[in-house]
Amino acid sequence: MPDDIRPFEEIRLALLDLPQPCAQSLAAVRARDAQLTKPPGALGRLEEIVEHLAAWQGKPEPAIERPLVAVFAGNHGVVARGVSAYPASVTKQMLDNFTNGGAAINQLCKTFGVGLKVFELALEHPTRDFSEEPAMEEAEAAATLAYGMEAIDGGVDLLAPGEMGIGNTTSAAAIYAALYGGPAARWTGRGTGVDDAGLARKNAAIDAALALHGPHLSDPLEILRRLGGREIAGMMGAILAARRTRAPVILDGYVACAAAALLHALDADATAHCLAGHVSAEGAHREVLARLGKRPLLDLDMRLGEGSGAALAIGVVKAALACHRDMATFESAGVSGKA
Amino acid sequence: MPDDIRPFEEIRLALLDLPQPCAQSLAAVRARDAQLTKPPGALGRLEEIVEHLAAWQGKPEPAIERPLVAVFAGNHGVVARGVSAYPASVTKQMLDNFTNGGAAINQLCKTFGVGLKVFELALEHPTRDFSEEPAMEEAEAAATLAYGMEAIDGGVDLLAPGEMGIGNTTSAAAIYAALYGGPAARWTGRGTGVDDAGLARKNAAIDAALALHGPHLSDPLEILRRLGGREIAGMMGAILAARRTRAPVILDGYVACAAAALLHALDADATAHCLAGHVSAEGAHREVLARLGKRPLLDLDMRLGEGSGAALAIGVVKAALACHRDMATFESAGVSGKA
Repeated sequence: MPDDIRPFEEIRLALLDLPQPCAQSLAAVRARDAQLTKPPGALGRLEEIVEHLAAWQGKPEPAIERPLVAVFAGNHGVVARGVSAYPASVTKQMLDNFTNGGAAINQLCKTFGVGLKVFELALEHPTRDFSEEPAMEEAEAAATLAYGMEAIDGGVDLLAPGEMGIGNTTSAAAIYAALYGGPAARWTGRGTGVDDAGLARKNAAIDAALALHGPHLSDPLEILRRLGGREIAGMMGAILAARRTRAPVILDGYVACAAAALLHALDADATAHCLAGHVSAEGAHREVLARLGKRPLLDLDMRLGEGSGAALAIGVVKAALACHRDMATFESAGVSGKA
Repeated sequence: MPDDIRPFEEIRLALLDLPQPCAQSLAAVRARDAQLTKPPGALGRLEEIVEHLAAWQGKPEPAIERPLVAVFAGNHGVVARGVSAYPASVTKQMLDNFTNGGAAINQLCKTFGVGLKVFELALEHPTRDFSEEPAMEEAEAAATLAYGMEAIDGGVDLLAPGEMGIGNTTSAAAIYAALYGGPAARWTGRGTGVDDAGLARKNAAIDAALALHGPHLSDPLEILRRLGGREIAGMMGAILAARRTRAPVILDGYVACAAAALLHALDADATAHCLAGHVSAEGAHREVLARLGKRPLLDLDMRLGEGSGAALAIGVVKAALACHRDMATFESAGVSGKA
């Protein structure tokens, strides 16, 4: 059996019969919004956020009681090509930093009352260097997808998948080039801050990979296996599991969206429950969001990963929901309507 | 003495010897930022926010312990021209709604732990219809400026001035036309949702005012007196008092920025302590921000006033500060630096 049609059975099955937006819940929040003490539409995208929550949670009174940033972490063999400004050892060191509460994502989650879980994906076994061979075996990729699905066990009502993995902007750029067309330089940026020579090595590694794997890149799951990383597989699983459990998703930046882009390529409907939390300063992210049909909530020149942009957006989402839930109506407040 | 050179002595004196940004505090937060466990620059505008707070608070460890949304409310004689979608009685009704905790601004302040004070400015005495005569006497305008300055009594470390006042997008548009050039239609929008006929009345009222007051509009304080409203005067005073007490300001939208624009026209340095919290869906606000030299933090199609866009931005500001204050350093967390 050729590589391109290997099964990845579990994930393909999970893509079937996805829950759809709840029209009744959407109608209910629209009806309530029209009664709130503000001009119609005056809260702009905050109103759109509440509609999204209602439709995808399937609740006329949407709630965010168990929001979660789920950070998946993996290591990348392609780091041996000198594609990152930081050594691979930083992946594990940053996970310890997450555990000890010292990273940006810890402060963002604390500020907005968001849970944080970190999933360490075999850091001692980096994926293979995708410029020379497929990054993963199908069994590895499929198991990590399944792990990501299980990580979101139904106890979450809003999910932001995040990631940590030195070298993973190289993997994400390779995925975008495979999905949307190369060359590498169209999709790469400086990631954590690589210099010109490092950026040239990054582009060379990706272009070599595109040449090597080119004939096998028509299937998004095969792109994941050959060019992806464990954290990207984990996030794919998590985004899909969120959909299946009616938890809306807030997408983070450049790397997290590679997971969304692979799902979207498998089935354009599979990311309909996602809002784009922010647009990254990593330049190509803007085009990725356009291809996913998502307008970012925030545009703050962030490029950190960890789920940081999505966590910040959850602050906006919580504020939107608070307005919808707790504002008075024209009738209850005795405020006159339009003249 | 011609109108144009009347004194407004207190405000002109208050514009002298304004505090300047603290270079040492700015250097201190930059030095700390360079040690935090993230690539340099990766938090984007969150880093810029912290620098702004440090420089203007004059503190190497900036803090937000007493943030305040200060909503000023006034009524406008020009409402008689049919320029608003809502009756003037809504101004007072909405103030009661603020008091009872039912408005959007209440929920936003509660979500982000921001104080809220509402200043009712002689609602029973609307300004005069500025399409026929000056909106205020100099004494009224000057007293309201002074009141706005006193409202911020030094007990605030971050200020967001907001407003409520049926008809006040008409006043703000007239101010912009006077400051930056007409005709009215260049600056007007639908405000709370006026229809085509109402928009035409709004433009006509402003164009009439520009023709009537034109020779007297070279002084920003005279623009305030002739075309402004009490809440705009109050916000001007508050922004200036914040500067004098080293409280950085987060600007709200279309109407709040009219106060900032008048100050900026008096002295371009007078709004240097302000960040733009958001850009409003009221179309001309984007050009206003460009003229003020401010890039908005948020762009969420909001157009509510009340300080709502600024309050939402305070969530971002608090998150930025939490990252700066509580993140581990490379050394404390044992994370390797660049390879």
